[in-house]
Amino acid sequence: MKIGVVMGSDSDLEKVKKAFAVWDELEVEYEVDVISAHRTPDLALRYAETAEERGIGVIVAAAGLAAHLPGVLAAKTVLPVIGLPVGAGPLAGTDALYSIVQMPPGIPVATVGIDNPVNAAYLAVQILAVSDGRLREKLRRYRQGLEEKIRAKNQGLRVQGLKGFVR
Amino acid sequence: MKIGVVMGSDSDLEKVKKAFAVWDELEVEYEVDVISAHRTPDLALRYAETAEERGIGVIVAAAGLAAHLPGVLAAKTVLPVIGLPVGAGPLAGTDALYSIVQMPPGIPVATVGIDNPVNAAYLAVQILAVSDGRLREKLRRYRQGLEEKIRAKNQGLRVQGLKGFVR
Amino acid sequence: MKIGVVMGSDSDLEKVKKAFAVWDELEVEYEVDVISAHRTPDLALRYAETAEERGIGVIVAAAGLAAHLPGVLAAKTVLPVIGLPVGAGPLAGTDALYSIVQMPPGIPVATVGIDNPVNAAYLAVQILAVSDGRLREKLRRYRQGLEEKIRAKNQGLRVQGLKGFVR
Amino acid sequence: MKIGVVMGSDSDLEKVKKAFAVWDELEVEYEVDVISAHRTPDLALRYAETAEERGIGVIVAAAGLAAHLPGVLAAKTVLPVIGLPVGAGPLAGTDALYSIVQMPPGIPVATVGIDNPVNAAYLAVQILAVSDGRLREKLRRYRQGLEEKIRAKNQGLRVQGLKGFVR
Amino acid sequence: MKIGVVMGSDSDLEKVKKAFAVWDELEVEYEVDVISAHRTPDLALRYAETAEERGIGVIVAAAGLAAHLPGVLAAKTVLPVIGLPVGAGPLAGTDALYSIVQMPPGIPVATVGIDNPVNAAYLAVQILAVSDGRLREKLRRYRQGLEEKIRAKNQGLRVQGLKGFVR
Amino acid sequence: MKIGVVMGSDSDLEKVKKAFAVWDELEVEYEVDVISAHRTPDLALRYAETAEERGIGVIVAAAGLAAHLPGVLAAKTVLPVIGLPVGAGPLAGTDALYSIVQMPPGIPVATVGIDNPVNAAYLAVQILAVSDGRLREKLRRYRQGLEEKIRAKNQGLRVQGLKGFVR
Amino acid sequence: MKIGVVMGSDSDLEKVKKAFAVWDELEVEYEVDVISAHRTPDLALRYAETAEERGIGVIVAAAGLAAHLPGVLAAKTVLPVIGLPVGAGPLAGTDALYSIVQMPPGIPVATVGIDNPVNAAYLAVQILAVSDGRLREKLRRYRQGLEEKIRAKNQGLRVQGLKGFVR
Amino acid sequence: MKIGVVMGSDSDLEKVKKAFAVWDELEVEYEVDVISAHRTPDLALRYAETAEERGIGVIVAAAGLAAHLPGVLAAKTVLPVIGLPVGAGPLAGTDALYSIVQMPPGIPVATVGIDNPVNAAYLAVQILAVSDGRLREKLRRYRQGLEEKIRAKNQGLRVQGLKGFVR
Repeated sequence: MKIGVVMGSDSDLEKVKKAFAVWDELEVEYEVDVISAHRTPDLALRYAETAEERGIGVIVAAAGLAAHLPGVLAAKTVLPVIGLPVGAGPLAGTDALYSIVQMPPGIPVATVGIDNPVNAAYLAVQILAVSDGRLREKLRRYRQGLEEKIRAKNQGLRVQGLKGFVR
Repeated sequence: MKIGVVMGSDSDLEKVKKAFAVWDELEVEYEVDVISAHRTPDLALRYAETAEERGIGVIVAAAGLAAHLPGVLAAKTVLPVIGLPVGAGPLAGTDALYSIVQMPPGIPVATVGIDNPVNAAYLAVQILAVSDGRLREKLRRYRQGLEEKIRAKNQGLRVQGLKGFVR
Repeated sequence: MKIGVVMGSDSDLEKVKKAFAVWDELEVEYEVDVISAHRTPDLALRYAETAEERGIGVIVAAAGLAAHLPGVLAAKTVLPVIGLPVGAGPLAGTDALYSIVQMPPGIPVATVGIDNPVNAAYLAVQILAVSDGRLREKLRRYRQGLEEKIRAKNQGLRVQGLKGFVR
Repeated sequence: MKIGVVMGSDSDLEKVKKAFAVWDELEVEYEVDVISAHRTPDLALRYAETAEERGIGVIVAAAGLAAHLPGVLAAKTVLPVIGLPVGAGPLAGTDALYSIVQMPPGIPVATVGIDNPVNAAYLAVQILAVSDGRLREKLRRYRQGLEEKIRAKNQGLRVQGLKGFVR
Repeated sequence: MKIGVVMGSDSDLEKVKKAFAVWDELEVEYEVDVISAHRTPDLALRYAETAEERGIGVIVAAAGLAAHLPGVLAAKTVLPVIGLPVGAGPLAGTDALYSIVQMPPGIPVATVGIDNPVNAAYLAVQILAVSDGRLREKLRRYRQGLEEKIRAKNQGLRVQGLKGFVR
Repeated sequence: MKIGVVMGSDSDLEKVKKAFAVWDELEVEYEVDVISAHRTPDLALRYAETAEERGIGVIVAAAGLAAHLPGVLAAKTVLPVIGLPVGAGPLAGTDALYSIVQMPPGIPVATVGIDNPVNAAYLAVQILAVSDGRLREKLRRYRQGLEEKIRAKNQGLRVQGLKGFVR
Repeated sequence: MKIGVVMGSDSDLEKVKKAFAVWDELEVEYEVDVISAHRTPDLALRYAETAEERGIGVIVAAAGLAAHLPGVLAAKTVLPVIGLPVGAGPLAGTDALYSIVQMPPGIPVATVGIDNPVNAAYLAVQILAVSDGRLREKLRRYRQGLEEKIRAKNQGLRVQGLKGFVR
Repeated sequence: MKIGVVMGSDSDLEKVKKAFAVWDELEVEYEVDVISAHRTPDLALRYAETAEERGIGVIVAAAGLAAHLPGVLAAKTVLPVIGLPVGAGPLAGTDALYSIVQMPPGIPVATVGIDNPVNAAYLAVQILAVSDGRLREKLRRYRQGLEEKIRAKNQGLRVQGLKGFVR
């Protein structure tokens, strides 16, 4: 199963690209589409409606401002939809966060932090990994890597002292 | 031309009903539908797509929480769509306000105040009245009424003094 | 009928000018005035009072901070007034948004997103188009253009892959 | 010189009446008017324009929601205008606070706390007292009273212990 | 696979119980634990660490105020963790929302709306259903039910008119 | 050493009294004063200035609205001052939280959650316990109690099932 | 009578200096002090206590973050105190605004907009002008100047068209 | 006794380093560790559990976004934990502030201002100084220094006038 990534504008690609690096490294398949809930509403509904049959297991939708895209997709599929609020504009992404997370009962969107594509990426993989032991193993190794990096930093602090770290 | 009123749940009728009173008094035709952007997305698109041919001149859409309905309707029609944020839930309508007003460039929603159906009602009539002098005249009389009520209150204050007004 | 554009300071012209481009392209007539609700209050009332007779069909008023201009104009006309909150100052336009959208019952302002002159522009045209089939047709073509641009982007993604889009 | 009190609706009288008690006790003259910036805009301008000649020295204006009244009055007088944000509606008075305090440079409104008519009252008196030694003396006695009340409470705590105060 | 539900206090059970009804109806197994990130931190880590081997496929964690529980669980498992912000206290759940959704890169929490246990419930089922066609089918039927209810309401409006709905 | 508790009004006693219960149970001495930063500013400075010599080791100051009391006390003592924001008024304690926590560099106030006197109480004891092993031991026992209560709830859930807990 | 200006740090002078220009132009006397509510609390109280006898008629106090200075001064004088919230730090002046405006009943601070020293300046002059007809006349001329500038801009727009104003 | 400083990433060192300067000047011992509540949760618990026996008297924990670190440490020690919210990301540290300060009853975190390491530093010293007269004396001298600097600035203003300070 692959991950379907949707964003309202190709300018959002810059905001999302760190997710691609995560999936490339974990060797998870994904496909990317530019679809707007407001400029191409029919396309959005059709995308969601046919996602399952196209082999998509989980959808990641990035949007800013009045960020309707994740919710509109969620309305037409029972696949999990992950909403990534993009922090554009004067309200710094609070608008996008509220528009994505405050869905009505029955149609959830799994929301991650504002401008946090890495978490959208890992959440998508964690969802696919529920039924995929090999993927879960990869995720566990990634977590160990995070832990080891911090332990190494700590070790560095002990050995070099603060001087090496603070300018 | 008539006004099309849409809300996501029949429980919103209580929140919107003051608008009906406005239109009844001004003798403007309106029709009411319960359509959810998330529970009946196809219906929502079809509603907007066919609104014009059904004689609707302006749409009023009420929604709370992640209030996508006005934006989703606006995506499929070039009729003006008025968004009425409903102040339900823990964020007191800030979520609905942001979800409705912060639309992407090209697909506007004319937003009125949180829980203010009277303003949704008058804005709809003002829009229809742009090309309808008789309706504009009715609106002017309504405004005069507002002014006269305040002058009367003021007169009352002068005559009776504060005692009659403050408990 | 033309669009009347009002802003409190000529420094706001930069914030509004994208609206002019929209109207120029759609060949809708508009006129621009600098009027302040606080520095020229009489002028503001007179502007609104005489707008109708000067052939104005809809008013667009841009304002920042304690943005009273749209509401003050709305108080003296039954033409639709579109309020454009300008995101200047430390509160990033939240002050302007609240000052514009939270109007008392009976005197609505049709509010668009913070710093979104394009939506003020299209909303104004959509309102004029309610009784102007030719204008509605132009708007429909604009919407098709939006849709086609996204489809083309999508096509580009399919053909060139992500590499061409993400640096 | 007297204090001019203005509010947009007679329903605000309940929200303001604690100010009347302050002025009654300090024997400061005041007059009360119901004037709306949006329903009676001409009246509002005329009120401010003629306030000085009617013997008013300072204006107190109470308003909620998109609270334009204090700013609109301030636009037509060089008397100090005190703005009292009324905490009505879903935004709990944040809208009124922003609409009142964030005035453009050159036209200030002296803003007090949300739903705090007592502070509007004392600020008005403090302003009149700048050139009135007898009034300043009354204010000083009031302050002493505040201090004595707290000292008495404290004394009570010492004598009776906490039990007498906490249920 | 079953759903693991965790909350910081048994008083949260009232806030979460609508989720149980969803799972009972869809016949999805779940188990409920009271575990606090701050009062029983070791228990929290051990719970997450052993969740997988105990047959849990997805975790739902409800928390209010400085809602650390979902994030602390997510730190020790690669199973998807759904965070349900509870809207208790003076900040109305904004504190819980921010504490849950703004996780650091690499350790996501799938956040749903404030006080929206129904969405936590359906999101959990949608995640389990990614690899369970029968469950996906149940979810599709549920969605059809939502749609039908709205169509029925609409039909009711058409037949009975507004009078039957608005008091 | 004892704890000095200060609040701006005896009406705050209700908001603080849960702290008294904590100290009574842990047998820590405390004294309570009503002192206002604004109504009795000299008293406030003198209180802080002499706190150390009166045997006070840590100060707890509760305040709402523009909550200056903790900061004003902190300005005149090098004893730790704990600020307890009281959630009164239309801004629900956000005003008090910001007024207490955002102190200028050099004069800290140790801030606890809005309307959380229990945390003010335990923080005060934890500070006194830094140099008092017996008190630290009492705190550890309290923590064990918290943990055991949760484990018991959990056990109850296992034995009685959900039915006993959810109405 | 002169204006007393107080700020917590000489770094605030940059934030306040536009007020000096206003007073220089209107030929109103003022004196400037650096006094911190937290670093020099005694000085702050003594300043306020003696302001009246030193010929000060109104105090302007600028402060950022937990902005206690205006309130602390107001506590020791019955002269009007104008609070100017400085928009420094991560909360962009919301903290300063709340700390200044939300004063307890009886001790008002006349609050102006965040980072708006010009309004602090004019409000101070308007207060002094209540009993000074010559100063009121100067203020009226200033207002006429504001109005004329806007009319000139408008005239420019009419003559040169938009091209001269929009780049 | 020494101060234990913990931060979730070595990139936070830049945000915290002003605290080191405070402690270096006051000759208070401290040790620095990089520990993440989410990437190294076991390490975090073990750190807190053993802090007391390693001679730590007070813990300072810096964190941004969903800032769980201070609360997670507080869960496993009865030493006072000072939380320093780091103002990173789109929410400017509001998320960190809420995540740190709104702890559940019984497990307090002593919170200081967003991005205010100096206050975290002084609060830590003030806590250690409760039982250390020599350290209290150093703090008093520091406070005198703050006061003298302001008096000198003031003196400078008197002597040089404003010209020397305002560009």
